[in-house]
Amino acid sequence: MTTSEAIARPVRVGLVGAGRIGNSHAEVLARRVPGAQLVAVADPRGDAAQRLAGEFGARALSPAELFDDPEVEAVVIAASVDAHVTLTEAATAAGKAVFCEKPMGLTLAEIDRSISVAHAAGVALQVGFNRRFSRDFAEAHRLIADGAIGTPQLLRSLTRDPGLANPAGVPPWTVFLQTLIHDFDTLLWLNQPARPVSIYAVADALVAPEYKAAGLLDTAVVVITFDNGAIATAEANFSASYGYDVRAEVFGSGGMITAGDGRRSATVLYDRAGQHVETARSDVELFIDGYTAEFVEFVDAVREKRSPSVTGVDARRALEVALGCIESVQTGAPVRLTEQTR
Amino acid sequence: MTTSEAIARPVRVGLVGAGRIGNSHAEVLARRVPGAQLVAVADPRGDAAQRLAGEFGARALSPAELFDDPEVEAVVIAASVDAHVTLTEAATAAGKAVFCEKPMGLTLAEIDRSISVAHAAGVALQVGFNRRFSRDFAEAHRLIADGAIGTPQLLRSLTRDPGLANPAGVPPWTVFLQTLIHDFDTLLWLNQPARPVSIYAVADALVAPEYKAAGLLDTAVVVITFDNGAIATAEANFSASYGYDVRAEVFGSGGMITAGDGRRSATVLYDRAGQHVETARSDVELFIDGYTAEFVEFVDAVREKRSPSVTGVDARRALEVALGCIESVQTGAPVRLTEQTR
Amino acid sequence: MTTSEAIARPVRVGLVGAGRIGNSHAEVLARRVPGAQLVAVADPRGDAAQRLAGEFGARALSPAELFDDPEVEAVVIAASVDAHVTLTEAATAAGKAVFCEKPMGLTLAEIDRSISVAHAAGVALQVGFNRRFSRDFAEAHRLIADGAIGTPQLLRSLTRDPGLANPAGVPPWTVFLQTLIHDFDTLLWLNQPARPVSIYAVADALVAPEYKAAGLLDTAVVVITFDNGAIATAEANFSASYGYDVRAEVFGSGGMITAGDGRRSATVLYDRAGQHVETARSDVELFIDGYTAEFVEFVDAVREKRSPSVTGVDARRALEVALGCIESVQTGAPVRLTEQTR
Amino acid sequence: MTTSEAIARPVRVGLVGAGRIGNSHAEVLARRVPGAQLVAVADPRGDAAQRLAGEFGARALSPAELFDDPEVEAVVIAASVDAHVTLTEAATAAGKAVFCEKPMGLTLAEIDRSISVAHAAGVALQVGFNRRFSRDFAEAHRLIADGAIGTPQLLRSLTRDPGLANPAGVPPWTVFLQTLIHDFDTLLWLNQPARPVSIYAVADALVAPEYKAAGLLDTAVVVITFDNGAIATAEANFSASYGYDVRAEVFGSGGMITAGDGRRSATVLYDRAGQHVETARSDVELFIDGYTAEFVEFVDAVREKRSPSVTGVDARRALEVALGCIESVQTGAPVRLTEQTR
Repeated sequence: MTTSEAIARPVRVGLVGAGRIGNSHAEVLARRVPGAQLVAVADPRGDAAQRLAGEFGARALSPAELFDDPEVEAVVIAASVDAHVTLTEAATAAGKAVFCEKPMGLTLAEIDRSISVAHAAGVALQVGFNRRFSRDFAEAHRLIADGAIGTPQLLRSLTRDPGLANPAGVPPWTVFLQTLIHDFDTLLWLNQPARPVSIYAVADALVAPEYKAAGLLDTAVVVITFDNGAIATAEANFSASYGYDVRAEVFGSGGMITAGDGRRSATVLYDRAGQHVETARSDVELFIDGYTAEFVEFVDAVREKRSPSVTGVDARRALEVALGCIESVQTGAPVRLTEQTR
Repeated sequence: MTTSEAIARPVRVGLVGAGRIGNSHAEVLARRVPGAQLVAVADPRGDAAQRLAGEFGARALSPAELFDDPEVEAVVIAASVDAHVTLTEAATAAGKAVFCEKPMGLTLAEIDRSISVAHAAGVALQVGFNRRFSRDFAEAHRLIADGAIGTPQLLRSLTRDPGLANPAGVPPWTVFLQTLIHDFDTLLWLNQPARPVSIYAVADALVAPEYKAAGLLDTAVVVITFDNGAIATAEANFSASYGYDVRAEVFGSGGMITAGDGRRSATVLYDRAGQHVETARSDVELFIDGYTAEFVEFVDAVREKRSPSVTGVDARRALEVALGCIESVQTGAPVRLTEQTR
Repeated sequence: MTTSEAIARPVRVGLVGAGRIGNSHAEVLARRVPGAQLVAVADPRGDAAQRLAGEFGARALSPAELFDDPEVEAVVIAASVDAHVTLTEAATAAGKAVFCEKPMGLTLAEIDRSISVAHAAGVALQVGFNRRFSRDFAEAHRLIADGAIGTPQLLRSLTRDPGLANPAGVPPWTVFLQTLIHDFDTLLWLNQPARPVSIYAVADALVAPEYKAAGLLDTAVVVITFDNGAIATAEANFSASYGYDVRAEVFGSGGMITAGDGRRSATVLYDRAGQHVETARSDVELFIDGYTAEFVEFVDAVREKRSPSVTGVDARRALEVALGCIESVQTGAPVRLTEQTR
Repeated sequence: MTTSEAIARPVRVGLVGAGRIGNSHAEVLARRVPGAQLVAVADPRGDAAQRLAGEFGARALSPAELFDDPEVEAVVIAASVDAHVTLTEAATAAGKAVFCEKPMGLTLAEIDRSISVAHAAGVALQVGFNRRFSRDFAEAHRLIADGAIGTPQLLRSLTRDPGLANPAGVPPWTVFLQTLIHDFDTLLWLNQPARPVSIYAVADALVAPEYKAAGLLDTAVVVITFDNGAIATAEANFSASYGYDVRAEVFGSGGMITAGDGRRSATVLYDRAGQHVETARSDVELFIDGYTAEFVEFVDAVREKRSPSVTGVDARRALEVALGCIESVQTGAPVRLTEQTR
């Protein structure tokens, strides 16, 4: 196959999940990733699949049909979290490369199973840790890897989400399993190859205290110590009035790097009240470059028949930290990670 | 035609010009603008056309073949400047919508002819003032239009190019006709609907003084007064050691707006020497969003059979200022614009 | 006494301690605080006192002589930490107003004694929490007090010191008792009137691991929960290569405030390597405004015969947190603060 | 005289002028410059002198008495502009060192006379170009002198004043003679030792058009070419809604430096409307460090019996540019500077 054929023949992708993030993924795949062609959409709500498929000239299928379809080479899973593992296994078993949104599963055993099935099928398995592909974070990682700040000693990663639209629908431990999971991956990645040693977490319902009894924790702070001595903090909150705020900071023996400033653009307005800069309002707005680049990586990995740069093992490692947080909140004590992912 | 057919059927674009900017445009059209399909490439240097066409699965044609080809709906002209007007006329006369790089022509008469031919043919004619489509500048324009700073009183726009690779190949007056032409459009657009009244320009060869005798001016400063009282400055230099630097500032009766900060990302490195941010190194890196969005606008205008938001008239207005600058440098005196484009 | 007499008659200050910070305080008092007149200096090392006194036209005395001297109205204590309490008691017992560097004492009982003696003598007792008087931090406090960010939910304060010149001379627990004590006061002050509930601290010797056995911890992270639900982190490190770095961040239900950017000035240098800003290299450089304003407050309190805005009670509250940290590090568990300062 | 005597014996200063800037100078001298002692104040309005003198424990005198007073060693002139030259001559003739606010005079002949009288009397003569002493600008100057940006090619300096309180009281040409005079000095100083070659200026009444007939121009733009090829712009406006805005930018063959960001502090507020920073509201707020340091320089020059770093010659050079601007506005043409100050 020549280069021009490669360009002429994008990877044919099926999308499972037509909710908010599924819609965003469809948009990114169709409009920003020339190496991908969105050919099919599946969703338990058939009309949602129909509508989204129609919008992008794709076919609406059931998940089973989608996995069976020989045209589909790769599957993007953006379904509800508790379906991730079943869908991943079904897709990989059918020989499809899989991109699965985070968290890949809710137990280590689930993720282990997904990893083995993908391994056995010889297909790529990528997890949706999009921050690694964002320009700011990628540049920070490169600088750290190049030794620009020496050995990391203090790290910080935070996620502040602009709004908690429907507190009633948020599953317990979401703050760790779905939100901070990004920060855990960021910290593990920026502090490579160090491994976490202990975890201490506190969490509370400060935004919507009336849902605390139902298990909703909307604010959390985590301390992680690593085997290279570094100490990290992670922070999350579900109601940032000023927009979607994701930042990281790594302080090392030779310097510091900060990533993220939350600005929508470099345009500054000066008026009677001072200087003003607009902030990004959603994860999609803040991370559109990362959402695009993670699919470019996925498509390239599929084409090149190689493992993507962020895999099921990374999903497992981040989950391990999230589970440690849950245990720490439940016991009120720090948790030592004894059997870690290697 | 249904929406999904519209998506399935992108506008088929032919590109004329396979040089540096032609390559960049091909890349943007093929990889970032799903509404466009690059189907043909033409260039006097047949092998350059062949290579670029091959890279994107397009056909290599001569310009005449490209204009005659019924598959081609729209033409992007990124050829040498002195061919712009001939190519634009040939393409529009053949009924193709045209996107022409700036400057659209080197005389007002040339541009007027292009405008009439396009008008007669009933096709879209867009000029490549990409800054209008850059996020920063678009946001500044929106804020000014919304009255955020009152009436503009002082404006500034500047272009500093990182390197003068081949001074011998730079045509005379390039600093006004090809570089500052962007700044003139920016100033006219940010100060809409005011019209320029007088122009004073100074220019010198500070980067490559040995080429001054040959007519190469690499550094220029321009003052423009407007009929709403506003006074603008424009600045250019061909050898910015720190990267590609484009910024604008508009001060008005109620505030100020600045656009552009030259940063590659929001990542900051702190080390023994202080705080450091990397700068953008090329126009393509700095303005990739603007280069993309200007083609989205072009494709949308073609589909919607409407005039694009930046047209031959804008090309004419900016050229008028550039020609005023040349006269001012030649006479050493300010120039009054008497017969302006309306 | 008329206003002009008040100006003509500054408060006569005696300084105890002629080390690094004593020298800085002498300089600030003599050159930046017109309401103060440095009249006497005492130090166990007589020659150091002699030299410093000579530099500013003051007399060199023993501490006892200084406390007995009727000319001395107020005493600034910048001696070694373990002498703070004895000196404070002697000075207040002699009827002098006292400004004592932090920490005011190393046990709560010591501080309680200083507070009572000062109370009995009816003299002002101020502790050297200079950050409260720094422009950035004062503005952040004012904005929070004005409700600009709603109820605090997440707080952060950090101190990174540029160098650990003499690790052998650093007493155990310095990171909590002398460095983070500033951050604890900052957090308590920015989250007023909430009270801390629990503390978890980790600390290590990452900068100078060879001194860990001797008890030197140079890197620490602390999590504090408050009775208004807010969760705070504090961080310290003794070897910031890029300068003296002190910042705070308060996230609330309605917004966020950040204070501190470590810049020496607003001058930016652009060169081949990007954009560069110089960083402040020492606490004195970074906080010269705070060091000045805290003495203005002290002198004003003495003149107006009122309590200063930051007192022994604040010193006690911050120490309480520092002691909680030490216990947490010793036990490896979070510590609940049961009997707090009220 | 030993060092400690030098400190004990500040330079005794008499202030002429008890208006807005005189009050500010008195405050700075009395509260921020330990090397100065304000001993006398004179003002044609005796009660203003009385009040200001009383506030700082100084004596109220007539100008003649002040110049005759043997206690007065140095005189600060902050009177109305048209009295500057007479007062400077009288003071220097009486053997006093003189610090004169800008402009030192309104004609070159006036300034020449002041320079000769001071020279004959052997006393220091300093002009109030305070920006040179501001941290930002001093750092920019140091970096340029150190070669950090190579040879200057493009310069910019601007002054935007927050309000035009009393347009009726503003003398003609104030924008050049009193406001931009600062920017001219800044440009000459940052581009040392180059000399200006040509000047082109435009000016208008955009803030208060109803005063244009009376000669009030409130907005101006100036282009200056230098004999090292550099081209500079200067800008002024009398009604910046967002505060007092003074910035400079110097672009050279090897880089760029910017000075000034108009921020009151490094505190950033984030809320529903984005990120916000407060701006400085007055020259005194923005430049308090420069106003202080220029008097430190004056006092040091007096003590060390040397010429200050900014003298009557600098006043003359800046005035020369201002007069060129006036001629350019009057003729509508660029002005060539033939007989320059050397």
